[in-house]
Amino acid sequence: MRMLDILEHKRCKQELTDEEIAYFVNGFTHNEIPDYQMASLLMAICLNGMTERETAVLTDCMAHSGDMLDLSDLGNTTADKHSTGGVGDKTTLIVAPICAAAGVKIAKMSGRGLGHTGGTIDKLESIPGFRVALSEAEFKKQVQTIGLAVMGQTADLAPADKKLYALRDASGTVNSIPLIASSIMSKKLAAGAKNIALDVKCGSGAFMQTADDARALAEEMVRIGKNCGRNTAAVITDMDTPLGTHIGNALEVTEACAVLRGKGADDLRELCLILSAHLIAMAKQMDYDTAYCTAARVLQSGEAFEKLRQMVTAQGGDASVLDRDTCFLKAAVEREVTAPQDGYIAHMQTQTVGESASLLGAGRETKESKLDYAAGIVLHKKTGDFVKQGETLATLYAATDEKCRAGEQRFLQSLTFSANKSQKTPLVLGTVE
Amino acid sequence: MRMLDILEHKRCKQELTDEEIAYFVNGFTHNEIPDYQMASLLMAICLNGMTERETAVLTDCMAHSGDMLDLSDLGNTTADKHSTGGVGDKTTLIVAPICAAAGVKIAKMSGRGLGHTGGTIDKLESIPGFRVALSEAEFKKQVQTIGLAVMGQTADLAPADKKLYALRDASGTVNSIPLIASSIMSKKLAAGAKNIALDVKCGSGAFMQTADDARALAEEMVRIGKNCGRNTAAVITDMDTPLGTHIGNALEVTEACAVLRGKGADDLRELCLILSAHLIAMAKQMDYDTAYCTAARVLQSGEAFEKLRQMVTAQGGDASVLDRDTCFLKAAVEREVTAPQDGYIAHMQTQTVGESASLLGAGRETKESKLDYAAGIVLHKKTGDFVKQGETLATLYAATDEKCRAGEQRFLQSLTFSANKSQKTPLVLGTVE
Repeated sequence: MRMLDILEHKRCKQELTDEEIAYFVNGFTHNEIPDYQMASLLMAICLNGMTERETAVLTDCMAHSGDMLDLSDLGNTTADKHSTGGVGDKTTLIVAPICAAAGVKIAKMSGRGLGHTGGTIDKLESIPGFRVALSEAEFKKQVQTIGLAVMGQTADLAPADKKLYALRDASGTVNSIPLIASSIMSKKLAAGAKNIALDVKCGSGAFMQTADDARALAEEMVRIGKNCGRNTAAVITDMDTPLGTHIGNALEVTEACAVLRGKGADDLRELCLILSAHLIAMAKQMDYDTAYCTAARVLQSGEAFEKLRQMVTAQGGDASVLDRDTCFLKAAVEREVTAPQDGYIAHMQTQTVGESASLLGAGRETKESKLDYAAGIVLHKKTGDFVKQGETLATLYAATDEKCRAGEQRFLQSLTFSANKSQKTPLVLGTVE
Repeated sequence: MRMLDILEHKRCKQELTDEEIAYFVNGFTHNEIPDYQMASLLMAICLNGMTERETAVLTDCMAHSGDMLDLSDLGNTTADKHSTGGVGDKTTLIVAPICAAAGVKIAKMSGRGLGHTGGTIDKLESIPGFRVALSEAEFKKQVQTIGLAVMGQTADLAPADKKLYALRDASGTVNSIPLIASSIMSKKLAAGAKNIALDVKCGSGAFMQTADDARALAEEMVRIGKNCGRNTAAVITDMDTPLGTHIGNALEVTEACAVLRGKGADDLRELCLILSAHLIAMAKQMDYDTAYCTAARVLQSGEAFEKLRQMVTAQGGDASVLDRDTCFLKAAVEREVTAPQDGYIAHMQTQTVGESASLLGAGRETKESKLDYAAGIVLHKKTGDFVKQGETLATLYAATDEKCRAGEQRFLQSLTFSANKSQKTPLVLGTVE
């Protein structure tokens, strides 16, 4: 088999065979196919697409390029969730404890944040003492004992995806539904859970900017999951405004705990109940409405919060910080951002809000950047709210005045004001089961 | 400027700016842009195309990436021709002397053959003593004195094209009209002639398989040439059957001399007169019919043949070999290929005929292959001819029995027979001026 023939076939929109796909995934993973040939193929895939079958085979080959976690001894209720990434998205910190309290076994590997989106692992690491590196044995034992564990990704999970993702990033070939779907699902398949809930974000803070693209990605991923014997459901949700009110690592832990203690923002609580309900329904073979009621009950009763406390303690973290109403880390500088004019907030360009949080110190510009866990934003007003000139819009937290100023400037760029109240976007734009 | 933005623009079918095109041509030539980014861009260009303006700018940037030959002191009649490559295409050896005899100054840099197509430089080197490496001063002086010179390409001619061509070859991105047109025309522009005739081949032995593709390529190249102040004309010609009867280096020199001495195949003579007429018409500002008569006259009178003798002598070659009716190099093995059945030759898959010549030793498999100048094929029958079983179709020449057998086997694969005489394809399929 020759890579040039595979390139020719994809360039001419011919469907690749299983053998051709396995050839380039394995060849590239083992450094036998040069970057320039792979980059050329990735661009051809971006522009000419992949059929359902091609995407399924690609995902399977990437999943099998490294370790495949075997969670079968934990039974059929193992569950995992994935979000395509947004601003203020701390749902894992709430969904995992709710599901665990409802008897679902949450075995989740999470990533770190890059660019304007945060990562669950970073958020958890803001808790003093919390360990994100577990051995496979520790991980499975903790899931077995207390019902949930969230750890950093191991090096051997889908190495083909790791290498391909880096090349896509460097060759301008990130934006392709088959490539995004196979990248996400290869890791989910390798991580071993039987039930998978996907939160596909859509809007100005998300990777998918339109509802059509988000739905296409959701459908592709659900199809892959089901074809590989995993119960899979996807919810397409609005990311045209930040989720909840807190953005930044320790700040998001604080807000997640508020929700688990019966407080917190409505949009965040609602999305967490929906995602939890999908996972509970699949894992416990329940109808969705019953699952939703179960999720609401364990949230209300405090059982979910107790599960988060157990997990934090099990992974070496100081669970006492979870009880506080204010953030357990204090930033050196705190600054109120005030409204430059009267009016309704017509739009918050959400990626810009995420960039503001990054400039404050909450995110990474490059993989090597060090995070400031205390940094971030607390929103007092969101899209659709009316504000008077000089009224406080948000509080910013950072280590220095300079970072605060840079964050404020970017934050203000995200806002559009209007004399009229705009229509509110619904939180859930669609469901794919 | 960032290569990733350029990639994003081309991926989204946005027209690139002049600055963006200059950025990637210069960056890639100077090893500042990695192969994988360039390969990704090349595939995006293959699939999303380039506008006329983009192609013109790309060609200009590639032409200016190295030396630009200045032939202005030779006046306005300097001329160059280019063929997109075929099997048995020895037109340069005939067109150059005809034009020189008609007072046009032929200053031509030629390439070597690769794959199933031959190169003029290889053919000339089969003449004992012939030197293809001339200094720029020698080259210009010879054009000035005797009216024609054909030399190998210098290293500094369009180095951007050299690097890009190698990457296209390795990344499956050869097949793109803007990329092919800019590659050819960048070298023609850098080589400095004021008048350019292009022979765009079409059919089973050519790069362009359909007349539509061939016309599109011809139009693109003529547009580029004219926009850059060169008189340019293109003829689209049939390469669905080999041109003339001789294939192989010394064999093609022999056939070219036959035409110049008033013999040889009709199709070959006719095409050479047409190409010559276009060059003479442009260079001498004559109408085409008058130019055609001039070409026919200098061919008939022997003046053209005398020009070839002068050029061979000037470049150190033994001109006496040009007078022979049979080939001046003798192959060790000679073999007649006979018809396996009665019937009309319905088709000769011309690339396969070229591959047969290569297997005999006349062509290169890789850039390092050594040529056997005596090897090749003489066709006794061509498409449309009726043959009886056992009748001689062709004579093959090679250094060993083994090569002869391999060449014969491949040659027979090229043939399709039919009980009915098929329609003859015209030699010239179109003209673009």
